Amino acid sequence: MRLLSFDDAGFESALGAIVARGEKPPEGVEETVREILEAVRLRKDAALLEYTARFDGMNLTPAGLEVSPAEIDAALAAVDTVSLQALQLAADRIAAFHRRQKTETWLTTDEQDVVLGQMVQPLERVGIYVPGGKASYPSSVLMNAIPAKVAGVEEVVMVVPMPRGEVNPHVLAAAHLAGVDRIFKIGGAQAVAALAYGTETVPRVDKITGPGNIYVATAKKMVFGQVDIDMIAGPSEILVINDGSGSPEHIAVDLLSQAEHDELAAAILVTTDAGFGRRVQQAVEEHLSTLQRAAIARRSIEDFGAILIARDLDEAVALSNRIAPEHLELAVSDAFSLLPKIRHAGAIFMGHHCPEAAGDYLAGPNHTLPTGGTARFFSPLGVDDFVKKSSIISFSRAGLRRLGPAIVHLAGLEGLEAHGRSVSIRLSDL
Amino acid sequence: MRLLSFDDAGFESALGAIVARGEKPPEGVEETVREILEAVRLRKDAALLEYTARFDGMNLTPAGLEVSPAEIDAALAAVDTVSLQALQLAADRIAAFHRRQKTETWLTTDEQDVVLGQMVQPLERVGIYVPGGKASYPSSVLMNAIPAKVAGVEEVVMVVPMPRGEVNPHVLAAAHLAGVDRIFKIGGAQAVAALAYGTETVPRVDKITGPGNIYVATAKKMVFGQVDIDMIAGPSEILVINDGSGSPEHIAVDLLSQAEHDELAAAILVTTDAGFGRRVQQAVEEHLSTLQRAAIARRSIEDFGAILIARDLDEAVALSNRIAPEHLELAVSDAFSLLPKIRHAGAIFMGHHCPEAAGDYLAGPNHTLPTGGTARFFSPLGVDDFVKKSSIISFSRAGLRRLGPAIVHLAGLEGLEAHGRSVSIRLSDL
Repeated sequence: MRLLSFDDAGFESALGAIVARGEKPPEGVEETVREILEAVRLRKDAALLEYTARFDGMNLTPAGLEVSPAEIDAALAAVDTVSLQALQLAADRIAAFHRRQKTETWLTTDEQDVVLGQMVQPLERVGIYVPGGKASYPSSVLMNAIPAKVAGVEEVVMVVPMPRGEVNPHVLAAAHLAGVDRIFKIGGAQAVAALAYGTETVPRVDKITGPGNIYVATAKKMVFGQVDIDMIAGPSEILVINDGSGSPEHIAVDLLSQAEHDELAAAILVTTDAGFGRRVQQAVEEHLSTLQRAAIARRSIEDFGAILIARDLDEAVALSNRIAPEHLELAVSDAFSLLPKIRHAGAIFMGHHCPEAAGDYLAGPNHTLPTGGTARFFSPLGVDDFVKKSSIISFSRAGLRRLGPAIVHLAGLEGLEAHGRSVSIRLSDL
Repeated sequence: MRLLSFDDAGFESALGAIVARGEKPPEGVEETVREILEAVRLRKDAALLEYTARFDGMNLTPAGLEVSPAEIDAALAAVDTVSLQALQLAADRIAAFHRRQKTETWLTTDEQDVVLGQMVQPLERVGIYVPGGKASYPSSVLMNAIPAKVAGVEEVVMVVPMPRGEVNPHVLAAAHLAGVDRIFKIGGAQAVAALAYGTETVPRVDKITGPGNIYVATAKKMVFGQVDIDMIAGPSEILVINDGSGSPEHIAVDLLSQAEHDELAAAILVTTDAGFGRRVQQAVEEHLSTLQRAAIARRSIEDFGAILIARDLDEAVALSNRIAPEHLELAVSDAFSLLPKIRHAGAIFMGHHCPEAAGDYLAGPNHTLPTGGTARFFSPLGVDDFVKKSSIISFSRAGLRRLGPAIVHLAGLEGLEAHGRSVSIRLSDL
C-alpha cells in the first residue's frame, strides 16, 4: 500500500487517479440497456421471461415469476436461530433510527390570513433491487425495505435474480422480517424495466432503490423521470482520519473491509503520524494475505489505496472534504471536536470503537450512502426517499384583497394575461 | 373545449392522450446535447464561448461572461418602484414559507450506549438555470434562489442566456433581491455543462435547478450523478375539482391561465355538475379570444383540455389521484374536507378564492412543482433540495461489546471476512 506525504511529487496524480476511478461506463452498455428497456416496455411479461431465461438460465411462466409463501417458509426454516436473531436485531435497530427521520404534515396561517402548509405522504408502491447469485446481501434488503415501511409505503416490491434457481435463504428471510410485500425472481435491466413500466405480472412502482451492477445502474438512470430512483451509485470508499492515537491494526482491517468489497473500492488513511502510517501499512500487508477475498482486496489496495501523511488535522480534514467520502472514520482521540469541520461525508464513524462494519449492519443508520464524491450533494437513503410532499394554499377573501393587486402586477411583468385575470376577476367579484 | 362524462365511449382514449402528451423527446436532441456536454467538459471556456456565439449571437470574452455590478445597478434603476415592491413582497413571503421547511441536525443516545445522529448541512454551491429571451420569468429566479439561500448555500450561481444581448431587467432585479451571488450570460446545454464540470470562468456547482427547454432538460438528465438536479420537468397541468359551487367564469380563467403557458399544457375540469361544466365551457370560449396568448392557449385547450362530468366527488378525486396533477384546485364548498383524500398533487389550491396564479407568484410555497404525473413521487422544490445529510455513528466500548457479536455473525453470512474481523479484533482488544 503506497505511503505519501502531502508535498510528495506524486501526491496529486495519485489522488486524481483515485477520485477519477470508475467514471466511465464500458462501451455498449447503454445500447444494450436501451434495447432491454424498450422490449420490456412494449412486450412486457413475454420479454421479461425471455431475458430471464437468457441471462439467469431460468425458464419461468408468468405465475412462476413471483416467490410463493411456501418458498418464504422454506427459506425461514433453512435459516438458523442465531442468524434470524441477528437479522431481527439489525431490523429493529434500523427501524428505530429511521422512525426518528419521519417528518409530519404542517399547516400555518400567516398575518395576511393565508393558510399555507406542506402535506407529507408516503409513496404508494416502491421497488427494491437486490443483487442475487454469489454476492447476496441480506443487510441490503433490510436497509432498503425498512425505511420504505417506516415511511408508510403500502406495497414494497422486491426483485432479486435467481441464476439457475439459486436462492439465498438469508435474503428471503430478511425480506420477510422487513415486511416486503411481494418478491419477483428477476434481475438486471429487465427487472428495472418491469418495475418502471409494469408488466401483466409485475406492478409498476413509483420509485426504484437498491444496488446493482452497471446494467442495473444504467437502467435506473434511464428510467429516472418515469419513476424516481435513489441515487447514482459508483464504487465505494472509506477515508480514515487519524492523529496517531489508537491501534494501527484496527485501522488496517477497517481499510481492508472496504477493499474486500470490490476491486474499484478505495481505502485511504490520512494520518498526522508518519510512524502510525507505516505500522498501518505493515498491518495491511499482514492481514491481506489471510483473507478469503484477498485477490479482490489486494487489487483495490494496490490500485486505489493510499496512506497519506498530513502536517496536521486541519490539512487532513481539508483533504477529506475535498474527497467527500462515502464512509469517514474519525479515528482520533477527540472525534466530536473534529465533527463540526466535516462538510461532506455519507456516514461518519466516531472514535476508535466504531468500525465501518458496525454501520453496514446494525448501528441503525442506512448503509446505502453517496459514493465517489457525491456526498457533496446526495444523502444517505432514508425515510425522506419514500415520501413526497404537496403544498397547500388557501386564501380568504381578505387575503386575496390584500395580496391580489401584487399578483396581478407580477403576472403583467411576465406577460401572462390569464394569470392576472384569474385574480382580477375575483377581486372585482368580491 | 371538449366535455365528456366518465362513461362516454371516448373518455379513456381522451384521457390517455392527455396523460401521454410530450413523453418523447424529439429525435437528435440527445446526440446534440452529448456533443455540447463533451465539448465544454474538455475545452471549457473556449467551447462555451463558441456555443454562446452560435446560439445566442453573443461574442463574449471570458471576462464578459459574467454580469457586472454595474449591469445589476442599471437593471435596478430600470425597474419601477411598484414592480420592485411587488417582487420584494413575493421574495419575503417565499422566504417566510421556506424557513418553515428547515430541518435541524440531531443526535441521540440509545439504550445500548450508541450515539446516533443525522447532520444536516447546506450544499456549498448551486446553479440556477433561468430561461432568457422572450419568456423571461423573474418569479422563477425567486422560487429557485430563495430556498437555496434559506438552506444556507454559500454561493448561488445563476445562468441566463441573453440572446443578442437582450436582458430582462426584472430578472436581474429578482436575482439581486433573492441574494444570487454570481450571474453568467449563458444558456442551453452549454450552460448546464459549464455548471456541471466547471470552466476557467464558471465555477463547478453541486446541484443544478430551474426550468429550461428540451435541450436544457436533456442536459440536466445527462449530468445527473456528476451533480444533483432538481427534477425531470415535463409539460405543465392543472386539474380543477368542482361540486357545482362557485363561479364558472373564475374556473374558466384558471384553466386558461394554465393553457397560456404552453401548447402542451393540460387544463382539466372535473365537476359533478354538468350544467356548471357547460357554463365553464362557454366562458372558456368567451375569454379565449381576448387573450394576447390566444393562439397558444387555444391549441392547449383543444388538444389537451377537457371538462369531465363525474357522478360524485369520490369519482372526481379518484381521477385526480390517477392523474397526479401538478396544480390541483379544490374549487368546492368545503375544500378541507376533501383534502385527506388527495394522494398525489404538486400544490393544492383550496376553495374559491385561490387561483393557481396566487401560488405562481407570492403565496409562499414554491411554484417549481412535479409535472406530468410525477407528483406520485416528486415533491415541490424546497429547502430539502439544497441540503444534504450525513449519518453519525459512535460506539462506546460497552456498546461494541453488546452489539459486536451480531455484527460479526452478519458479516459471516455475507462472506465479508474483513468486515467481521474489524469488529472481532476490537472485541479481543477490549
